[in-house]
Amino acid sequence: MTHEAGIPLGIRFRLLSDTPQDSAAQVVNDVVVGDYRDLETLRAFARGCDVITFDHEHVPIEHLRALEKDGIPVRPGPDALVHAQDKGVMRARLDALGVPCPRHRIVTDPQDVAAFAAELAQDAQDGPEGRDGGRRADGFPVVLKTVRGGYDGKGVWVVHSVEEAAEPFRAGVPVLAEEKVDFVRELAANVVRSPHGQAVAYPVVESRQVNGVCDTVVAPAPGLDEDLALRAEEMALRIAKELGVVGHLAVELFQTRDGRVLVNELAMRPHNSGHWSMDGAITSQFANHLRAVLDLPLGDPRPRAKWTVMANVLGGDYPDMYSAYLHCMARDPQLKIHMYGKDVKPGRKVGHVNTYGDDLDDVLERARHAADYLRGTITE
Amino acid sequence: MTHEAGIPLGIRFRLLSDTPQDSAAQVVNDVVVGDYRDLETLRAFARGCDVITFDHEHVPIEHLRALEKDGIPVRPGPDALVHAQDKGVMRARLDALGVPCPRHRIVTDPQDVAAFAAELAQDAQDGPEGRDGGRRADGFPVVLKTVRGGYDGKGVWVVHSVEEAAEPFRAGVPVLAEEKVDFVRELAANVVRSPHGQAVAYPVVESRQVNGVCDTVVAPAPGLDEDLALRAEEMALRIAKELGVVGHLAVELFQTRDGRVLVNELAMRPHNSGHWSMDGAITSQFANHLRAVLDLPLGDPRPRAKWTVMANVLGGDYPDMYSAYLHCMARDPQLKIHMYGKDVKPGRKVGHVNTYGDDLDDVLERARHAADYLRGTITE
Repeated sequence: MTHEAGIPLGIRFRLLSDTPQDSAAQVVNDVVVGDYRDLETLRAFARGCDVITFDHEHVPIEHLRALEKDGIPVRPGPDALVHAQDKGVMRARLDALGVPCPRHRIVTDPQDVAAFAAELAQDAQDGPEGRDGGRRADGFPVVLKTVRGGYDGKGVWVVHSVEEAAEPFRAGVPVLAEEKVDFVRELAANVVRSPHGQAVAYPVVESRQVNGVCDTVVAPAPGLDEDLALRAEEMALRIAKELGVVGHLAVELFQTRDGRVLVNELAMRPHNSGHWSMDGAITSQFANHLRAVLDLPLGDPRPRAKWTVMANVLGGDYPDMYSAYLHCMARDPQLKIHMYGKDVKPGRKVGHVNTYGDDLDDVLERARHAADYLRGTITE
Repeated sequence: MTHEAGIPLGIRFRLLSDTPQDSAAQVVNDVVVGDYRDLETLRAFARGCDVITFDHEHVPIEHLRALEKDGIPVRPGPDALVHAQDKGVMRARLDALGVPCPRHRIVTDPQDVAAFAAELAQDAQDGPEGRDGGRRADGFPVVLKTVRGGYDGKGVWVVHSVEEAAEPFRAGVPVLAEEKVDFVRELAANVVRSPHGQAVAYPVVESRQVNGVCDTVVAPAPGLDEDLALRAEEMALRIAKELGVVGHLAVELFQTRDGRVLVNELAMRPHNSGHWSMDGAITSQFANHLRAVLDLPLGDPRPRAKWTVMANVLGGDYPDMYSAYLHCMARDPQLKIHMYGKDVKPGRKVGHVNTYGDDLDDVLERARHAADYLRGTITE
């Protein structure tokens, strides 16, 4: 999708891809297949590139520092990207900035988790804010996350007892414990920042999750208080600035029952919660990410329609989704289909659809229908 | 641009390109460099393709018939495409359909041109319609066109005397003489038709020419009488149906002083007069061309903005247009730049810009400014 956004600007890509079958490798015409964890592969790849950017956060920070020393601009740079790679570093930094987050602590074993839970229980008794969210007297449930490598619910556990807390420690990697926030919904504030400090904010969206995976995004978030929206945008812009982000920053947020927003996750790349912008905004997140990475002036992030809905298409039982185009396109001539060319596996994100219009119920129904039909969970 | 439109649908291209530097070859990842005039090249290329389509009209008709015999779907097919290749065949067919065209005749030498001019002069005296358009008593000026291979004013002469009429015959190719129409402006009716006969019509646009090259397109055509717009759309849909066009058909039209529309040219591919649709319509001409060629249901062709303006970017004195992005993007964060990756040569179409909005003067000014700045004819 970034390649797609680069074509009109004449921006050429060299792609480092794990396999020749990766989505981007199917459409970019200068592909190097190699392992992004290998410094020499990265060095050979980077030679002759004007700038390096990413579609995931997993390239080792020390390798990125080495590329920078070689004189290759890396955007976002390693000093920013570490906050998207390591949830422990991210939480510590946001704390230092005074950005509201769920309560959290790096934990080393299940007993540590139980102690953290007990503190949460104590706070809930003492606190005026009604933040208990169904928490029991022992402070459970608690959310545990591996500090690195989590994605779409992987590397995240909701544990209800000290016994259940054993599982996340088995991999021997650091674990972050967080309070289970009593949220009314999830939001995302997407911003883009360029090296010389220009920044734009997309409207705050609502992100609806099913089984820990983003199902639907509504832009803008329906019924969101204007002050709260502004606070969320300002918070995302401030994080982008303080962390020195270059490119797209998605700040995933919890909207709490008591009217606050807490930062859940950060992503420093075009993000699922911004896919609506491809058809719903004047400038898409992909175009603005590219413009930021190249230090070009940023494009207008405002919506083109009153409502835009993005629904993720998950893999279903049918390996071929193309034949479903016939029904979906005939039913809704305004539908926008974006498929990624991935092998279809049940539950895997293999594409998304966008719809837009003036009537939110209609726009939601059209997106929902198309995503379900493409997946094969409905047949008419 | 067709590749760009194919990415979201997971449609993969194999490209036959004259050189590895062609615009499309820079972004498509399966490129065969070869001569489209050579049948064996075409056959080897076509093997394994699901369907063949074009970004120009010059592939020999007999070769396309051979590919069809080999079982390769060719869309638009040779029986349709011949009308876009050969202006003599096109005029004869439109006459047979009763579609209004400028008066015309295949001519074999300058004396023939003079005889044709004399008839025009006679008609103008007899006719009630005031069609003389500044024609002299001898019927000149007359427009001469090579029946094949003309493009952007090349292969077209406006001759004012029998002496001037000698030039077009020097190449030894058939020549079509046409009356010089007294038009108030040029319009274009863009339609898309699929193999099973579904068709959509884009709003009729105004196309403004400078030195025989399209300079600006305004969508929809300002102040166009609704009945005339409807007649033009119906005419284009009828031509697409009668000629068996599959894919995009652009019908370039003259709007005459006496309120008629006459067909100037046909193009059977996404066309310059439809480039506005990339940012201005719900479904772009490229997406709809692809959907037609694949016999998928067509997308909604309606505009997303009150006004959209496309301005072609011509090559100027500066080989590097990228540095101009800084000014253009900073001045107008809503500007859409589409560059083709072509070598910059003075006067060559190397890209276009789109602008849209509610105020036509503003939208026109923004497009004009950006196109002029990119070309280098203004510097602030």
